[in-house]
Amino acid sequence: MDTLDTQDIAAYMNRVGAAARSAATAMAAASTAAKNRTLLALARLLRENGPALDAANARDLDAASAAGLAGPMLDRLKLGPKVVATVAEGCEQLAAMPDPIGEITQVKRRPTGISVGQMRVPLGVFGMIYESRPNVTIEAASLAIKSGNACILRGGSEAIHSNLALWKLVQVALVEAGLPATAVQLVETTDRAAVGRLIAMPEFVDVIIPRGGKGLIERISAEARVPVIKHLDGNCHTYVDAQVDIAQALVVTDNAKTQKYSPCNATESLLVHADQAAAFLPRIGAIFAAKGVEMRACPRAQAILSDVSGATVVAAVESDWAEEYLAPVISVKVVDSLDEAIAHINRYGSHHTDAILTTNHPHAMRFLREVDSASVMVNASTRFADGFEYGLGAEIGISTDKFHARGPVGLEGLTSMKWVVLGQGEIRQ
Amino acid sequence: MDTLDTQDIAAYMNRVGAAARSAATAMAAASTAAKNRTLLALARLLRENGPALDAANARDLDAASAAGLAGPMLDRLKLGPKVVATVAEGCEQLAAMPDPIGEITQVKRRPTGISVGQMRVPLGVFGMIYESRPNVTIEAASLAIKSGNACILRGGSEAIHSNLALWKLVQVALVEAGLPATAVQLVETTDRAAVGRLIAMPEFVDVIIPRGGKGLIERISAEARVPVIKHLDGNCHTYVDAQVDIAQALVVTDNAKTQKYSPCNATESLLVHADQAAAFLPRIGAIFAAKGVEMRACPRAQAILSDVSGATVVAAVESDWAEEYLAPVISVKVVDSLDEAIAHINRYGSHHTDAILTTNHPHAMRFLREVDSASVMVNASTRFADGFEYGLGAEIGISTDKFHARGPVGLEGLTSMKWVVLGQGEIRQ
Repeated sequence: MDTLDTQDIAAYMNRVGAAARSAATAMAAASTAAKNRTLLALARLLRENGPALDAANARDLDAASAAGLAGPMLDRLKLGPKVVATVAEGCEQLAAMPDPIGEITQVKRRPTGISVGQMRVPLGVFGMIYESRPNVTIEAASLAIKSGNACILRGGSEAIHSNLALWKLVQVALVEAGLPATAVQLVETTDRAAVGRLIAMPEFVDVIIPRGGKGLIERISAEARVPVIKHLDGNCHTYVDAQVDIAQALVVTDNAKTQKYSPCNATESLLVHADQAAAFLPRIGAIFAAKGVEMRACPRAQAILSDVSGATVVAAVESDWAEEYLAPVISVKVVDSLDEAIAHINRYGSHHTDAILTTNHPHAMRFLREVDSASVMVNASTRFADGFEYGLGAEIGISTDKFHARGPVGLEGLTSMKWVVLGQGEIRQ
Repeated sequence: MDTLDTQDIAAYMNRVGAAARSAATAMAAASTAAKNRTLLALARLLRENGPALDAANARDLDAASAAGLAGPMLDRLKLGPKVVATVAEGCEQLAAMPDPIGEITQVKRRPTGISVGQMRVPLGVFGMIYESRPNVTIEAASLAIKSGNACILRGGSEAIHSNLALWKLVQVALVEAGLPATAVQLVETTDRAAVGRLIAMPEFVDVIIPRGGKGLIERISAEARVPVIKHLDGNCHTYVDAQVDIAQALVVTDNAKTQKYSPCNATESLLVHADQAAAFLPRIGAIFAAKGVEMRACPRAQAILSDVSGATVVAAVESDWAEEYLAPVISVKVVDSLDEAIAHINRYGSHHTDAILTTNHPHAMRFLREVDSASVMVNASTRFADGFEYGLGAEIGISTDKFHARGPVGLEGLTSMKWVVLGQGEIRQ
């Protein structure tokens, strides 16, 4: 920060980019042992440096309070012993995972005599752009280390002191393990021009991963000159089919909507087959009413739900079908067929996560295949759409794109497969 | 063509895009049998309609001759019975291949009770932009059909009548098999504005695949608002290591350079370890001299090669190391180590295909891992980098990017993996 000539952000970012590109070569060749040593050292350093981290975090918290930031914003900014313990544990879990890099798969002997397979290799350099939560600094750094990538981190200006303190520990861990400190770099300026440059240097950066509000992500996607692994919104559906275990459907739908309102994998829209509307809607309506969940309903659903005592039911308008509430609000629609349910989801959904609750096997299979979303589920809560729940060990983001990585993105999303040909002097005829 | 209001290209392309998006839904759900029936019908129609195709092709050839197009350009434009037979056979081969769509892999039971796996699904809609060769129309259409995608084809204006005639057969085959004719659409206007629109409608098109000259591809990449599967150039290297079977290395290097000069996987640069320079260079130099291959050499290579009788040897300049000659020209450099070879390739190469010729196993493994190219080879000719040689059955292009698809792109490159969760009423705790 102190040494940075802010007059020349482009030159600074070029230096950061060139250093990352160079570190990426070393990281791609790094041994599994060196990468795991780094992660274990980082976990240790995080545990040993609580007071220093607290002091840095306090500077950010004080500044945020002085600037009048609201409670939830301060919560996200807070590091504290529990958050530090969690990220330290995350580093240890990553160290314990198999190294994805160098794995050669699907080797097949071809008629010409050559053997052709694929090798998993790092993407190279990723840029991570995120807001408030300083723990993302460690999550991104540790995923970069394990996957053999270099990364350039650009956190929110409100967390700059926390991020700098955490980054210092990452650098110590890297150097201790014999890896380049520049494998993980934090953008030391809070100047916004640095982001503009970070997303537009394909010569240094292979992919950008933004985490934050929809506005931030849309802006980055529109302006980036490199691929973006992005997640815009999660308008997730739960569809209750004509043939269904109603007791189970009540439990799952309740969980999908109310277990937590803020995550992107919470259900925002409930579709119910007409054959089950009379049986299912009054009971789920009573559950929602008891929890204070407002229902925005189609006319048929409204006619049924209006009889539920204590329920807040309003007529849904067109925009409700596309909305991600992240709140105790759900849209409810009665449909006449599986086809209608699938068409509705593909039209209004955000291609994030959608579930069918059914006992009909062909319907389950059609839903899995035809709903065009990153995660499709049968008889399970949409809340399961998560890297940890899927067994990825860690998650750098959730992608609602189809290209490259889809859904929860773990280590594999930070890699690519190159072709490997093993010959004994074969030539092309 | 005749019905098109060229005043309103954007509106026309929007109609084409919306129709493709809609057809993509049907194609994603299409049965393997229907897709294979379409491919077999198309093969039959191609064989039955030789005269009509010849007539359409003759219109393009006449116009091209009248416009003074050169011989190689006319060759590429020519359809003829042999080309038609080849693409018909390609359709039959695709029909015989396993259907990649719907395959569910890596299903694992999680501690919560849910089973999590991945299902291969089509990307949706791809746009293909290509020049002269009309056979690409059938190659792209058949890959789209087998992979369950819809596609929008934009061929060169010089091939418009051939492409329209071929496309008509594709539509007949689709309808015969009960699939939407709009699954494959050809842009019927030769107006350039149509390309500008095609690459900038993310709501309708998921990926663009350009095939053609470097200028075309760079322009499209710069302007596209959707992902591009692209291949810019193939500056491929063959590196002769310190420990090597010289007789084998001569055969492989000769093949890699001279079997054909124009393909992107031909070797353009030869690196030789200093320990082998005196033994290897005079012999490969004699082979190149006999075939009229000009050598652009570093000073050390030049000193040795200058003694080869009949050889054309000139001093290499900096730009030679980065150049894709596609001609009987090769750059030659003596290096002092494997490290220097790898660094040179990563710096000057185009990340397409590079080979090491060696008997040293650790060197082979390091080369495979550390050379950052789509295809890396040991003791084989770079000319093997090809979808058919790799067993992909068909190839829609070769990608020199790392994101999504890398190297030869076949059916799988036109698909993505979505997450599938199978539960029995599990909820998130």
